[in-house]
Amino acid sequence: MQMPEPSQAIMNQREALAVALRQIVGQEWVISDEAERRPYQCDGITAYMAMPLLVVLPGSAAEVQQILRFCHERGVKVVPRGSGTSLSGGALPLEDGILLVTSRLCNVLEVDAPNRVARVQPGVPNIKISEAVQHLGLCYMPDPSSQLISTIGGNVAENAGGVHCLKYGVTANHILGLEAVLMTGEIIRLGGAYLGAAEGEMDLMGVLTGSEGLLAMVTEIAVRLEPVPEVARVISMSFPSVEEACACVGAIVGAGIIPAGLEFMDRKVLDAVSVLIRETFDSNTAALLLCELDGTAVEVDALVDVVSDVARNQGAIETKVSTTEEERQRIWSSRKLAFSAIGKLCPDYYCTDGTIPRNKLPEVLNKMADMSVKYGLDYANCFHAGDGNLHPIIMYDAAKPGDLEKAEAFGADVLIACVDAGGVLSGEHGVGVEKRDLMTHQFTDIDLNQQQMVKCAFDPAELLNPGKVFPTACRCAEFGRMHVRNGAIRFPDIPRF
Amino acid sequence: MQMPEPSQAIMNQREALAVALRQIVGQEWVISDEAERRPYQCDGITAYMAMPLLVVLPGSAAEVQQILRFCHERGVKVVPRGSGTSLSGGALPLEDGILLVTSRLCNVLEVDAPNRVARVQPGVPNIKISEAVQHLGLCYMPDPSSQLISTIGGNVAENAGGVHCLKYGVTANHILGLEAVLMTGEIIRLGGAYLGAAEGEMDLMGVLTGSEGLLAMVTEIAVRLEPVPEVARVISMSFPSVEEACACVGAIVGAGIIPAGLEFMDRKVLDAVSVLIRETFDSNTAALLLCELDGTAVEVDALVDVVSDVARNQGAIETKVSTTEEERQRIWSSRKLAFSAIGKLCPDYYCTDGTIPRNKLPEVLNKMADMSVKYGLDYANCFHAGDGNLHPIIMYDAAKPGDLEKAEAFGADVLIACVDAGGVLSGEHGVGVEKRDLMTHQFTDIDLNQQQMVKCAFDPAELLNPGKVFPTACRCAEFGRMHVRNGAIRFPDIPRF
Repeated sequence: MQMPEPSQAIMNQREALAVALRQIVGQEWVISDEAERRPYQCDGITAYMAMPLLVVLPGSAAEVQQILRFCHERGVKVVPRGSGTSLSGGALPLEDGILLVTSRLCNVLEVDAPNRVARVQPGVPNIKISEAVQHLGLCYMPDPSSQLISTIGGNVAENAGGVHCLKYGVTANHILGLEAVLMTGEIIRLGGAYLGAAEGEMDLMGVLTGSEGLLAMVTEIAVRLEPVPEVARVISMSFPSVEEACACVGAIVGAGIIPAGLEFMDRKVLDAVSVLIRETFDSNTAALLLCELDGTAVEVDALVDVVSDVARNQGAIETKVSTTEEERQRIWSSRKLAFSAIGKLCPDYYCTDGTIPRNKLPEVLNKMADMSVKYGLDYANCFHAGDGNLHPIIMYDAAKPGDLEKAEAFGADVLIACVDAGGVLSGEHGVGVEKRDLMTHQFTDIDLNQQQMVKCAFDPAELLNPGKVFPTACRCAEFGRMHVRNGAIRFPDIPRF
Repeated sequence: MQMPEPSQAIMNQREALAVALRQIVGQEWVISDEAERRPYQCDGITAYMAMPLLVVLPGSAAEVQQILRFCHERGVKVVPRGSGTSLSGGALPLEDGILLVTSRLCNVLEVDAPNRVARVQPGVPNIKISEAVQHLGLCYMPDPSSQLISTIGGNVAENAGGVHCLKYGVTANHILGLEAVLMTGEIIRLGGAYLGAAEGEMDLMGVLTGSEGLLAMVTEIAVRLEPVPEVARVISMSFPSVEEACACVGAIVGAGIIPAGLEFMDRKVLDAVSVLIRETFDSNTAALLLCELDGTAVEVDALVDVVSDVARNQGAIETKVSTTEEERQRIWSSRKLAFSAIGKLCPDYYCTDGTIPRNKLPEVLNKMADMSVKYGLDYANCFHAGDGNLHPIIMYDAAKPGDLEKAEAFGADVLIACVDAGGVLSGEHGVGVEKRDLMTHQFTDIDLNQQQMVKCAFDPAELLNPGKVFPTACRCAEFGRMHVRNGAIRFPDIPRF
């Protein structure tokens, strides 16, 4: 992984910058002490680490404005960070950049039940939004696995998904308005606090959502609230082969049903999980699907019958349907514990994500088996089958020299196989640093250039989260203008910890 | 309405340009004859007219590439056009620009039923997509009133809505991939031909959707297909006052129901329509709501009961529910004929669109009554109540001096009232030239500047549909760089026909 060479000149100014930034946010909200900066040196991918120049915790949008204006004037880089659960290195600090952490911007500002919207600050953990509105029978739908910890600001930056995004859509489908601070310190307001508020304006809100902190620092978010579905039931379906399970995924959607969630677990995951949940799975089961259906009671009952029929026709060995909420939770626990369970099988694991058309699932899963042999590393599969979003879990031992590199190469091969199958590099984890150098495999130079033009339209000096997403530096700034369509500056190596 | 001063130098080259463009598209596909250009001089708003320099009808994306590259090199402006049904002047020609018409790019290229997607060319009329897939039980959901004529390319350019966009979302929610040609002639490909194909890339597809032809020329669109709902039923609900009808809109949504459509018609519309449909409405009815519910039969039956109860609690005089498809069509006919019916009451009418939070409906509707008195012009209301998307129909007589100007001023006052109520200038018609000069009322200079930065990141020479959407020219090109944040060049007047 290569990152831009840190600026020694900036690094030498650490204390002077700290003094200036403390005048904006107050003494205690700038962390310069090395030991106190250490907890911030990586995000959810611990393979990549760098110590931030300073950690700054603003308490208001006005402070964010002042910080960015100050950094813009001094040419200091800025990396935004929520809770640091990113799985692609999007919040990896820079040694010559400040880490701008949203922990103090953690208030639910307003709940407007009639218009079904909540205005929140970026540092609010995802789950806290639903908790704040559950007494109204409402919830915030997108549910990344990290939802207890990950912040809504980080969810916006990564356009986070989750089990229920098959039916309800990803973060972008649930954001009605954004307030964001540009690197110049100027505030832009996009959309608003009700459905339709973004009609008739250029969709900059969509561009910011999923832009991985490269365009602006979001300071307020208007999220869409939805009624909690009246009923949810889950069907567990076991299959004698991976192929039959994959075919069933297509058959369910082909029957006109978009389940609330449709998850796949292979035998390796089931074996690992059965230790934790103290339940065994039929020995003929090669793969299990969990299909959640929600809606009104009559609707769900009807859908349960259809899905059960489809599963039987597709060769399911067994189908189990939850009849109570407790049963539903118990059935889901196998999926929820999957990653912890795999963690007990190996010293370390590496999980990547790519998305493919649903009908390409068997092809790419078969390729993974070959890759496992090639790299001599074991793996397991537990993923969002309904939207073709793969999450291969590659097991390795970081203490073994070369093992991490092999795991990374395995992961890269999976992503390349996804792109070659007509898919994409990312489902919900973003590109960050992890997949950055694979972007040229998915996009043409023209496509990448156009994306970088838009980046430059927001941040021409490339001070916001540089070195992420794009494999080459944009040359716009160098030429003082846009539309330089050739040439590429390679980044030097970043030391690995 | 003001437009950029046309370039006489370019206008003098009409025949030379025609010769060169004919080498790209063939002799018959460049229209230079004045009489043959006349049908293209306006779009759905006939108040604004301009004769295009030339009309060019490319037959392939490769020809579009060559045309744009040629125009880019010569500095010739380009206005894209589908069927010309735009209601904001988005396809208004320029006297010194070619009109690039998609009529020949009218093929459904591929229907992929398992992945629920169709690949189509931009000139395909909206309704043709559903017709091409109806044998599979599928359809393309967004249904603008113009759907028999308007093209999918134009729908993408305007991010078109429709009656069913309350439940199913606008065009942007149904586009999975785009191929587009930049003004330089380069092709970009965004998203792809399956759900999730746009994950993990900067959302340029979202920016293109609704960009009103200012960023690139779309040459291929992958649209999402949905199963045709099993059952649809409509409830007609009459109310003794506008306020009670508006309150019922909020109460239905507040009951956790998002209807497939929720339309409002005032007494003036009902009186006009009753002549055409030969049916009378109860004399105590001041406003009528039409609420469509769709889904499985059991689900729809249950929802019909809930909505009927809500309506009665909100003071409905009468509720009628369709029991057959024929009845459903008959009930909807009043809404579908509304604009034709109003057309019979007056020589001319002017319809604008703005969107407001649902709970602001009574406030803005009351203001309209005052405006009607102020301008001495009659008006009627028939609109998408569920998403707060107003379509006031202002009646005037173009033959009366000053009447059009009064109608425009009335329309502008309505839009300003929408923005002042926390709403926006447009719901589904776009900004075009009609609302361009009102943009400063909705957006700050910083917001507008940022939108223009992004425009410049696609088309720095401002050759694609210039003079639309933004009230001032962007100064980026002038300075050869981005981020000029002050100053504004006013456009001179365009002659009105």
